[in-house]
Amino acid sequence: MERVKWVVKHTVLAKFKEGVEKGEIEKLIKDYADLRNHIEQIKSFEWGTDVSIENLNQGFTHVFETTFQTLEDRSAYVAHPAHVKFGTQLFTTLEKVVVIDYVPRPEP
Amino acid sequence: MERVKWVVKHTVLAKFKEGVEKGEIEKLIKDYADLRNHIEQIKSFEWGTDVSIENLNQGFTHVFETTFQTLEDRSAYVAHPAHVKFGTQLFTTLEKVVVIDYVPRPEP
Repeated sequence: MERVKWVVKHTVLAKFKEGVEKGEIEKLIKDYADLRNHIEQIKSFEWGTDVSIENLNQGFTHVFETTFQTLEDRSAYVAHPAHVKFGTQLFTTLEKVVVIDYVPRPEP
Repeated sequence: MERVKWVVKHTVLAKFKEGVEKGEIEKLIKDYADLRNHIEQIKSFEWGTDVSIENLNQGFTHVFETTFQTLEDRSAYVAHPAHVKFGTQLFTTLEKVVVIDYVPRPEP
């Protein structure tokens, strides 16, 4: 199968600390989405809340997925001051987090 | 923004046990991808290995993402005998795993 485009997915799983209020979480998600307007390397941003039914979410409640065209663009994003500033704010509100990047492929 | 299509993402983060050999992992990934040929509700399957640079992968090395058109299709997949059989095999090889499903949206 031909790859239509080269894509890097940057996936963040998050569990917020007890006591972080709904309004604060909504503001953080708004700011996360707003990074698109400050960091040109972001190709797309999507997020959602857990709706799984297998009881294997390990307490994670939110997924954030940012995509880039290249690994270099991903690295530029990680180092970008707007990302660093936002990430620092976000992390103070998290009980736990996983960040994993991968280049998705359909076949083994 | 109009949603082009209703999609449910079923995301699995995995860390294999020490001693699980490369060939065994490759076979498992092949079998994972092959579920498409047995479970009609699967809309797409992609996977990849961690290439993150922020040291926040918490030891997870693989991501598997299966997509469905509806939550009902996702539930049918979870209950499908081919998935149950494969999942049981896969889980014996994992040190840790997170499974989280979400309906991705672009905006807060």
